[in-house]
Amino acid sequence: MNVIILPLSAFDDTAATIDNAEQLNHIKTVLKASVGDTLKIGKLGDKMGVGQIAHIDDKVCLLENVRLDTNPPPKLGVTVMLALPRPKVLRRLIMDMTAFGVHHIILINSVRTDKSYWGSPLLARLDEFVLEGLQQGVDSVPPAITLAKRFKPFVQDTLPSLINNKSALVFHPYADTSFKEFIHHNPLPDMIIIGAEGGFVPYEIELLASVGVRAVSLGERILRTESAVNATLGRWV
Amino acid sequence: MNVIILPLSAFDDTAATIDNAEQLNHIKTVLKASVGDTLKIGKLGDKMGVGQIAHIDDKVCLLENVRLDTNPPPKLGVTVMLALPRPKVLRRLIMDMTAFGVHHIILINSVRTDKSYWGSPLLARLDEFVLEGLQQGVDSVPPAITLAKRFKPFVQDTLPSLINNKSALVFHPYADTSFKEFIHHNPLPDMIIIGAEGGFVPYEIELLASVGVRAVSLGERILRTESAVNATLGRWV
Repeated sequence: MNVIILPLSAFDDTAATIDNAEQLNHIKTVLKASVGDTLKIGKLGDKMGVGQIAHIDDKVCLLENVRLDTNPPPKLGVTVMLALPRPKVLRRLIMDMTAFGVHHIILINSVRTDKSYWGSPLLARLDEFVLEGLQQGVDSVPPAITLAKRFKPFVQDTLPSLINNKSALVFHPYADTSFKEFIHHNPLPDMIIIGAEGGFVPYEIELLASVGVRAVSLGERILRTESAVNATLGRWV
Repeated sequence: MNVIILPLSAFDDTAATIDNAEQLNHIKTVLKASVGDTLKIGKLGDKMGVGQIAHIDDKVCLLENVRLDTNPPPKLGVTVMLALPRPKVLRRLIMDMTAFGVHHIILINSVRTDKSYWGSPLLARLDEFVLEGLQQGVDSVPPAITLAKRFKPFVQDTLPSLINNKSALVFHPYADTSFKEFIHHNPLPDMIIIGAEGGFVPYEIELLASVGVRAVSLGERILRTESAVNATLGRWV
């Protein structure tokens, strides 16, 4: 937690109230902060700044002299469309993409996505994972998140307007061109599409190609989804 | 598991024996393979190839017609020196660095490395995590791994001969140059050095600088160690 991000409702003029258990725990056990100390904070969806601890106990931390005068860092300008991953890695993926500054995250169904993943209780906790990512990456503006439970209608009806003549790549181990070669000759793409473990099936790659998505490989080694997402986003930083 | 890597002792002429519980489970429940099917295998530290299932039960899988005629993919030509991370992320970090093809991994102590990490039972299981990484990345040759429990003597006495006039970078949020700028003007470095959560302290950065390690930043956002390692290695693939 490199900044504490609070909802709009936490603020009242130049005061703010922190009652989230994880944030309180961080202030007390990691920062070891007490009355008079200054905390780095941000308002969700708005600016970042500082506040001074006026009171702290086991239930609440009250801030005074709150100043929110810093703009959050710019977003990366890339949309990531990801086949819904195993619930176990969903939290870290959402956190990492948010920390990197991805501006739009699309979670889509795919043939190799286990149907049970859509029933995971973790899907109801995306806001929590986004908050963790913002607090890791020092940002206050959440990415847009879209859930696309049906692959074909989303790709055919919605994706074209999102791509809108910009550049979109899908990672596919059997593509002729590698991502490395592609970006050696072209600017970084506006959208990257990454499959579940096992990748997309040929039919999905063809459907994506029909709306202008180009397939590229990530080299001959096979990376975990999480590793591939981070490895790719590293090109932007 | 995209290839099954077996120790030298598993091979006997053109036969091989698999009795590792995870590998057996993978063959039966993921690959759903049975007698007559061909498996992609490799010999640890040697070549890769195929073998045909002659017998399989709950305890053992016997392969026949084993051919090991494929060279493993080349290593990345980069050494990663990492402040020993929290045990929780150690497994994934070793797996990922191995899957990427890092040829030498150094785990080093640092001021911000909790002393208890060196007592973690996971440190005795590095070979297991390397095996997972090889089987993920489709490789048969393990990286070299060095444990450096004392920062100063390792940096002063051992690191110079490892760097040996080649290029070594340490990630530091307060560096003037970013990694992106650096590699825009220079070839990819031969060694990257990454701190624990919280990074290296100024004294450590200075000691590294004294043996020729240059500090670069990874942009204004702060990434988790795991995310930073993958984001950086992504430049090589």
